Formats: sequence, C-alpha cells, structure tokens
Amino acid sequence: MSTTSTSGLVIPCKAAVAWEAGKPLVMERVEVAPPQAMEVRMKVKYTSLCHTDLYFWEAKGQTPLFPRIFGHEAAGIVESVGEGVKDLQAGDHVLPVFTGECGECGHCKSEESNMCDLLRINTDRGVMLHDGKTRFSINGTPINHFLGTSTFSEYTVVHSGCLSKLNPLAPLDKVCILSCGISTGLGATLNVAKPKRGSSVAVFGLGAVGLAAAEGARIAGASRIIGIDLNPMRFEEEMTNGGVDRSVECTGNINAMISAFECVHDGWGVAVLVGVPNKDATFMTKPINLLNERTLRGTFFGNYKPRTDLPSVVDMYMSKKLQLDKFITHRVPFSDINKAFDYMLKGEGLRCIISMED
Amino acid sequence: MSTTSTSGLVIPCKAAVAWEAGKPLVMERVEVAPPQAMEVRMKVKYTSLCHTDLYFWEAKGQTPLFPRIFGHEAAGIVESVGEGVKDLQAGDHVLPVFTGECGECGHCKSEESNMCDLLRINTDRGVMLHDGKTRFSINGTPINHFLGTSTFSEYTVVHSGCLSKLNPLAPLDKVCILSCGISTGLGATLNVAKPKRGSSVAVFGLGAVGLAAAEGARIAGASRIIGIDLNPMRFEEEMTNGGVDRSVECTGNINAMISAFECVHDGWGVAVLVGVPNKDATFMTKPINLLNERTLRGTFFGNYKPRTDLPSVVDMYMSKKLQLDKFITHRVPFSDINKAFDYMLKGEGLRCIISMED
Ligand SMILES: NC(=O)c1ccc[n+]([C@@H]2O[C@H](COP(=O)([O-])OP(=O)(O)OC[C@H]3O[C@@H](n4cnc5c(N)ncnc54)[C@H](O)[C@@H]3O)[C@@H](O)[C@H]2O)c1
Ligand SMILES: NC(=O)c1ccc[n+]([C@@H]2O[C@H](COP(=O)([O-])OP(=O)(O)OC[C@H]3O[C@@H](n4cnc5c(N)ncnc54)[C@H](O)[C@@H]3O)[C@@H](O)[C@H]2O)c1
Ligand SMILES: [Zn+2]
Ligand SMILES: [Zn+2]
Ligand SMILES: [Zn+2]
Ligand SMILES: [Zn+2]
Repeated sequence: MSTTSTSGLVIPCKAAVAWEAGKPLVMERVEVAPPQAMEVRMKVKYTSLCHTDLYFWEAKGQTPLFPRIFGHEAAGIVESVGEGVKDLQAGDHVLPVFTGECGECGHCKSEESNMCDLLRINTDRGVMLHDGKTRFSINGTPINHFLGTSTFSEYTVVHSGCLSKLNPLAPLDKVCILSCGISTGLGATLNVAKPKRGSSVAVFGLGAVGLAAAEGARIAGASRIIGIDLNPMRFEEEMTNGGVDRSVECTGNINAMISAFECVHDGWGVAVLVGVPNKDATFMTKPINLLNERTLRGTFFGNYKPRTDLPSVVDMYMSKKLQLDKFITHRVPFSDINKAFDYMLKGEGLRCIISMED
Repeated sequence: MSTTSTSGLVIPCKAAVAWEAGKPLVMERVEVAPPQAMEVRMKVKYTSLCHTDLYFWEAKGQTPLFPRIFGHEAAGIVESVGEGVKDLQAGDHVLPVFTGECGECGHCKSEESNMCDLLRINTDRGVMLHDGKTRFSINGTPINHFLGTSTFSEYTVVHSGCLSKLNPLAPLDKVCILSCGISTGLGATLNVAKPKRGSSVAVFGLGAVGLAAAEGARIAGASRIIGIDLNPMRFEEEMTNGGVDRSVECTGNINAMISAFECVHDGWGVAVLVGVPNKDATFMTKPINLLNERTLRGTFFGNYKPRTDLPSVVDMYMSKKLQLDKFITHRVPFSDINKAFDYMLKGEGLRCIISMED
C-alpha cells in the first residue's frame, strides 16, 4: 500500500475501542476520515500504555467520555497531511504528543512554558479542534478522540502541531515511549527540579515516569536518589537529614503530592508535581512549609516543547546518554492490548509496547 | 554616659512591656542584664512597628506569651559585647534582625537560604539561646524576649549573629525600617520572585512590606505593578490577560495567599508568600493550578542574609536607588508607643518611627 493511494479517502482499519468505563477494549473496524486543515493522518506503528490512559478509561476520578479510542504514547509514520501543513509530509517518522506547539502564542514564544494556548492538553475534549467533530466512526457513529492522539488505532488523525518529527534512524519500537512518560519524568527533573551536582533527589512513584525522573537525576549528577513507592515490588526508602534537595512526584496520588512537597529541605528545597490527580483532590499544606523557603512547581510533559525540544531528547537516546531499554518490560501484539492494561493494574513492569502490525 | 562605664553591669532603663494580649503597653523600669557569650547589648535609638509585632501582641491566631517586650524593627548602637564576639564592638552602629546568620550551618553556607539552623526566627521562644533565660527583669520577675530582638526597650540584648553592622553614616531614624519590613518586601521581589524587565507584578497587601515589594518591582523594571488591598484607603485593582507574571503576597491573610497564587499566569507565573499566617490556617488549591506550570514559594526576610547581604541594601538607600522616606508616615516619642499600635490597627499610614530619646 503506497502512502499516496489512500490520501483523501476514508481508511477503514482496526482500532481498540473503549465502549464503557473499566470494560476491556473491543477490537473494532473503524473508519478514519482524511485529515482536515492543519491535521495529519498517521499510521501508528507502536504504542504503549501510560497511567493517564488508565485513569480516563477507569473514569473513577475523571470525567467519563465514551465510546472513545485511548492511547497517546506512540510512534508512527505520516500517511497524508491536510491543507496548510508545511513541515510534514507522507513518510515522515513522527511522535504524537498530548500537548502541542502552535509556535505563535505567548506560551510557544516564552522560553519557560510549553502550555500552548491552542494545543495544550484537554482531557475532556473528544473531538478535533478544526470543526469540533471526530475523525473516527463505526457505521456512522462517531467515536471520541483522547488527548488529540488516540493511538490505539492503526490510523489516527492528529493536529500537525502535536507531532514531533523524528530522526528516521530512531527505532520506533523504542522511542515511542519518549512520546509521553519518559520525556515527562526526565524533563520534570532536568528542566524543572534542576538538581545540582551532588544533591539528593527523592522520586515518589516508581512507574516509568518516576524512573525516568530518577534517570534525569542520574544524568544531572545527583549523589543520592531515593525512590518511594507503595507497591512493595518497587519499594525502597531512606531517611534524609532535614529533607531532600529536590523531589519529583510521579504518582497522581494527592497524599504523595503533599508528602513530596513537605519532604524537601527548608531554605532551598524544590518539589515538582507530575502525577495527574483525581479531579476532586485538593492540595493542602500549612503556609509555614512554604514560608520556610520551599518551592512548589508543577509540569506537563517535563516542560519540553514537543516540536522544538523533543528531537534533542531522541538524540540523547541515539547517543546512548539516555537509556530506554530498561523501561520496556513487556511487548504484546495489538490484538492483546488488554494485557497491557492488566499489567499496569497489577503494577507489573513499566512500559508494555503494543505492536500494531504483529 | 560612656559606653564602657556600664559594661558588665545591669542597666536599668525604660521599656514598653506587654503584660497581656491586646492591652496597651505599659512603660516600665526594667533591668537589662549584661550580654552573655556571643551576645551584644545595644542601645536602641529608633524602632518601628511591624505587623508581626501586632499579631503576637493580639495573640489571636498566635501563641500567647506574656509578659513580653515586643519590637524587632530598629537601629541602634552597641553598648557592650559578650565573650567571644569578635566582629562587633562598643560604638558600632547596628540593625537587629529577627533571623540571624551563624555563618557555619548548611543554610549559612548555601547561596539560596537565609534560614540559619541556629538563629532562624522562632516566634514562640521568649529566652536567649545561650542559657535559656531572659535578660530582662522587673524586680526579679523575668520578662520574655520577642524574636530575639525586643527593641521596645532603651537597651536590649541580641545574639551577635542577629546584628548587621551598619555604615556609620547611615541615618538611624531612616534605615531602622530596613531591619525588617522594607528589606522583606524588597527582597521578596528582587531575590525570590525575580520579575523580568517589562513583566507584570501583582502585590497583595499595601502596607510597608507590600509597598517595598512594589518598590522592588520598580527597581527590577516591571512594566506593570498592580496593588491589591482590602483597605479602601489603599485600594486599586486591574484586570490582567491570563494572569500576572509574578505576585507577592504581603498580607498574612490565607485567602490573599491563595488568590496571589491562583492569579499568576500558567506556564511561567511565580507567586511568593511573605505574610505571617494565622497558625491554624491551611493553604489549599487544586493540584491542576500547580500542574499548569505555576510556581509557589515562600520567603523570610526577603531571602537576605542579615550580616552578609543587608549592608548592600543600606548602600542602595545611601546611593538613592532605594527610597525610604515614603514609607515613614508617622513619628512618635517612645512614651507614645501605643499610638503606633493605633495607627496600624486603623490601617493609617505605613511605618511609624518611635524615637527612644525624644
Ligand atoms: N504531567 C504529565 O505531563 C504526565 C505525563 C505522563 C504521566 N503522568 C502521570 O504520572 C503518573 C505516573 O505515570 P506512570 O505511567 O509512571 O504510572 P505507573 O502506574 O506505572 O506508576 C505510578 C507508581 O506510583 C505508585 N504510587 C501510587 N500511589 C502512591 C503513593 N501514595 N505513594 C507512593 N507511590 C505511589 C504506584 O505504586 C506506581 O508504582 C500518573 O499519575 C500519570 O497520569 C503525567
Ligand atoms: N516573611 C517575613 O519575613 C515577614 C517580615 C515582615 C513582615 N511580614 C508579614 O508581612 C505582612 C505585611 O506586614 P506589614 O507590616 O506591611 O503590615 P500592614 O498591616 O502595614 O499591611 C498589610 C496590608 O494587607 C492588607 N490586607 C489584609 N488582608 C488582605 C486581603 N485578604 N487581601 C488584600 N489585602 C489585605 C491590609 O489592608 C494592609 O493594608 C504581615 O503579615 C507581616 O506579619 C513577614
Ligand atoms: Zn502519558
Ligand atoms: Zn502555542
Ligand atoms: Zn517585621
Ligand atoms: Zn547558620
């Protein structure tokens, strides 16, 4: 199948559809409409499961929106582009990202922010921005998008500002995990917590995001990295003298967020929140904990701008500065995608790579 | 009276004693013991009233401790020094500060912190560190210290690490306000919020501390400074597009603290808390406000180290970069000290200078 033969046509393909909260995904034949203005249709090659997918699929502490195609950590190849897309073309290797970069708003122009006004994360929207409609349907029934990526489908439509063009030599079955979790944890440490050489860093939650935060601490030259997790298979704790220099919370649990803040050293400690909280959760602390010269910050996607900054993270992997293999603990074919959910629910392993073509 | 004639002796003098919470101070004859190891006895020349004195005198949201001699914003002259004091001698001009600098702990050695392990603020201690006793008494009844400074007395004893040596040309009746409020507000902006040139800064609470924070914003080159106060005599408000770049809270009110945090721009906004909160207050916010890449910090004394950094603030005044006159709205003789409390309770004016010798 050539990439141009399908351009402009509806593509029928397989997708794993979530019809109801918490129920196994169902492999369906969906129709994927062509990309509209500034959109790109991509063939997903590999995708993996991040805890954010699980939260919205469970819909316990989050707004339910079904039927929906989840998935946002992935790598693939551009099939065709919509009107106005200039910097991508059929055949380009890409990483889709849940937060985009329009290049023109105050955030995209700021050195500090990656929260693009146009393309920032919106967990409750199930449609494309251009026309407020979905590009997925089954016999005319629209199926909702998730995070503008919906990578649990052989083909998906993504805003061009949410795609990072890849070095074509990068192995897609590895770098797909840079599309969310690993970059998020790595950037939370390197770009936001910014530990000094020789300092101590505590990481709360030792899933893939947390271990990537720890990898960031290693790269930054921290002398002591302390991992804290509830899951006894991952647990390790230590005491520190007066608190740690930096902490990075990667759990989504509000109590862990509060502990991560309160465990940093007064005078100079910095705590960074990464986890996606239950929508009813409230962060609470005594103001004296702040007045004692602690700093509290939050980040999305490790403060990386997806188009501008992600290529440098891929380069870190290509030059062996950043390890990815250790994060990949399972592999399943697309038809077994529900196994990836089981692994995460049981706290087994870190990232499960789902191959679309096996 | 020569400075040496009293050295080693108890000095009887006038002090304004708070016998009960919220009741007018009473001018008493107190005995001030000689300074012990590492302590200094100073003659207070000018003192002023900061809101922190008022909170602990009212003791509504704070631990009551009476009888007590309040006062911590002041300037004076060293009368005599205790054993081991090497860098100060009789006749030196000094500013006492509620937080000290031992020079040897992790905080004193850190570039970021001024929260000295030994001499940091302790609002509930009424005695000197050396022997756990007071240096003030009336007919043998000990009178509690406040913040290690107790400047509402003609003579007081202070740990040498809590004294900043002054340029002897600096006018004591002006620079006394650098001993707490003005340095606190100025440093909160310059050292902690660090606004960029051309940015917007909101200041909550337009007392002396808040106006000094605004003065810091002016010096940093902010293009827009927005003041928010409940007091209608001081009120001014504006709308901002998506939030301000920086905010500095100088009220002590928990709702103002939360508003100050939530009004900063997502992506890059930084909020700095300065106000001393009611001890039962809890800071609460939705974690998404943090995840949206806002930063929350707190500071004591504007992150200035009293001995190392304060001389440079005095220099800013001496070189006319920093204005002080506008903060001084009232002057009273020591005998009228209760008038200073009335002015602050009514929200009239900013700083009232109390002259010990008039
Ligand atoms: N801000 C962002 O840009 C961003 C991006 C990706 C993921 N996330 C979030 O980061 C978090 C981690 O994602 P992941 O894929 O690594 O998930 P994961 O499930 O693999 O790992 C989470 C770990 O946290 C541990 N944990 C849970 N509660 C805890 C507590 N109270 N104390 C200590 N540990 C606790 C769990 O045992 C688990 O090991 C999730 O909340 C996810 O939604 C945020
Ligand atoms: N962290 C430190 O190192 C430090 C040092 C000095 C003072 N302080 C604290 O800073 C604060 C200000 O001190 P000050 O001497 O300027 O006091 P002040 O009484 O002169 O000024 C406080 C101002 O805040 C306003 N205010 C009160 N509640 C408010 C609200 N909800 N919203 C907006 N404005 C409100 C009041 O009307 C008043 O004008 C106090 O809490 C004081 O204890 C802290
Ligand atoms: Zn994710
Ligand atoms: Zn943008
Ligand atoms: Zn004060
Ligand atoms: Zn110290």
